[in-house]
Amino acid sequence: MDIDFELKKRADFFNTQLEKFLDGGNPESLYNAARHLPLAGGKRLRPCFSLISCEAVKGDIIKVIPLAIALELIHNFTLIHDDIMDKSKLRRNLPTVHVKFGEPSAINAGDLLFIKAFESMHNISIDCSIFKNVEFGFIDFIKEICEGQQLDMDFENKQTVNEEEYLEMIRKKTAVFFQFAAEAGAIIGGGTQDEINALNEYGLNAGLGFQIWDDYLDISSDEITLGKDIGNDIRNGKKTLIAVHCLNNAVGDDKELLDRIFGNINAAENEVRQVYDLFKKLKSIDYAKNTALNYISTAKNVLDKLPDSEAKQLLLELADYSIKRNK
Amino acid sequence: MDIDFELKKRADFFNTQLEKFLDGGNPESLYNAARHLPLAGGKRLRPCFSLISCEAVKGDIIKVIPLAIALELIHNFTLIHDDIMDKSKLRRNLPTVHVKFGEPSAINAGDLLFIKAFESMHNISIDCSIFKNVEFGFIDFIKEICEGQQLDMDFENKQTVNEEEYLEMIRKKTAVFFQFAAEAGAIIGGGTQDEINALNEYGLNAGLGFQIWDDYLDISSDEITLGKDIGNDIRNGKKTLIAVHCLNNAVGDDKELLDRIFGNINAAENEVRQVYDLFKKLKSIDYAKNTALNYISTAKNVLDKLPDSEAKQLLLELADYSIKRNK
Repeated sequence: MDIDFELKKRADFFNTQLEKFLDGGNPESLYNAARHLPLAGGKRLRPCFSLISCEAVKGDIIKVIPLAIALELIHNFTLIHDDIMDKSKLRRNLPTVHVKFGEPSAINAGDLLFIKAFESMHNISIDCSIFKNVEFGFIDFIKEICEGQQLDMDFENKQTVNEEEYLEMIRKKTAVFFQFAAEAGAIIGGGTQDEINALNEYGLNAGLGFQIWDDYLDISSDEITLGKDIGNDIRNGKKTLIAVHCLNNAVGDDKELLDRIFGNINAAENEVRQVYDLFKKLKSIDYAKNTALNYISTAKNVLDKLPDSEAKQLLLELADYSIKRNK
Repeated sequence: MDIDFELKKRADFFNTQLEKFLDGGNPESLYNAARHLPLAGGKRLRPCFSLISCEAVKGDIIKVIPLAIALELIHNFTLIHDDIMDKSKLRRNLPTVHVKFGEPSAINAGDLLFIKAFESMHNISIDCSIFKNVEFGFIDFIKEICEGQQLDMDFENKQTVNEEEYLEMIRKKTAVFFQFAAEAGAIIGGGTQDEINALNEYGLNAGLGFQIWDDYLDISSDEITLGKDIGNDIRNGKKTLIAVHCLNNAVGDDKELLDRIFGNINAAENEVRQVYDLFKKLKSIDYAKNTALNYISTAKNVLDKLPDSEAKQLLLELADYSIKRNK
């Protein structure tokens, strides 16, 4: 099975539906700003999670498309607002929405995608009480995303973050997305309660694995040059799992080194290198890598509860996909 | 009937429920930022519209509280984001959310109130298909609010705006709020389709009247001193109904004067005075006042379709209330 081909097939189908859904609208200035990011491509991983989960319970993926659109719009709404908060200039190789359209229109475009996501939810053809149940889960996970975003921002100014707090942050900021996508895809697909629960767990664990692997990739892909990204993360005191592990395990001189350099915006090149070397010495990078692999492995094991099918095979490969990908 | 007393009674009851709904939440930094504005008071006009509409169809107002909370949260979410867009420093005599908590947390707090509004909608105890219907109206009006906000921003850079365009902007930015509040209050209260339609029209017309009266109050309350607000609105080229009327009726030298000064950020004090005098000469201020009064009158006439009751009397006075209030 060629996972890239299978994902692209679904993403292409999804894109056609998304373009249709986002077509038109007045005033054009608002709708153009709102379309800029969601129509700029991307892997459509969240939609794929919901589509393939639906397939895995033998559901009709056409019924899941409105959910998949809603998920992608919420993802894009959070990216637009996060980019304003982080003052990011580029996203998917394009200027961010606030750079291209100005900050006021970008805030408003994000808000529009937020409400359009709910509009799309209402296009799900499903029994009313199931709809309410799915929509309530949708609301709940979006609330967690707001909370996760705040935790992430708060962590930058926090001296110490323990692993539990870190995991809670990435669960809320990232993993709930995959958790809800997989669970709701299974509900709409008509899965049994056991299947729904299994796909919920699959999504959660895959989501956690993805995010931690992202932290790991950031540092390992940048390893040789120890380029701008790692340097900035160390200078900004970014609480990745690697940093959290190191902060919680360093003692004596190592601890003193971290206190002095980690989160010091003026740290010199050789100081950043010292922190990086400490990450290696305390095996923090390995620890993050192994933690990610464990979550991916748990995600895959949970799928034992599903009957064998091509879609199940695809979900297994999708979990592994995260630990193959490059930045 | 003492309208101030009646509104305050409902606002007090509403505030208790709102405080309960917004209590707690993690992380505190986010929830404190999100509570700052909604718990800072205000007249709770939108909740009152929904509560009294429910009363007017002999419904139980307890059932409307979750809707009223949702409306107030959406109102506050738009204020928080609009204040960022407009760079406003004060709101309800307090620092705006972005001034007090920083812009990133303010964007996120607005987003949280947005999603909490949907959470509150799910607390409405009502038949599922009616719920879906009401929630769809909720989604639709929020979408219009985003569109109206964009139109308002776009108008500042537009040379000419006709009256139809202006009315469409305030309908979307403001009036739909009152329209939906009144309509949904009647639906949840179990009103007949005729009653629901009448309260929809009532809310729309009262909302349009309110907003135009606001423009009128801005200029008339500032008349003697011709203070900062009018000066800024003229220098920024703000498209109020007064300005729109004047721009569309000025010819010859008057037109030339407007073209030169209206929207000229560097206009001198005496030039601003000339524009103001032109507003008077072309009866643009009177025109706006009369237009507002007409909408209020229409709103009241529509209520003929409702049986007499104390609540109906209150709605009649509520419509007049807008044209009695001061800034």
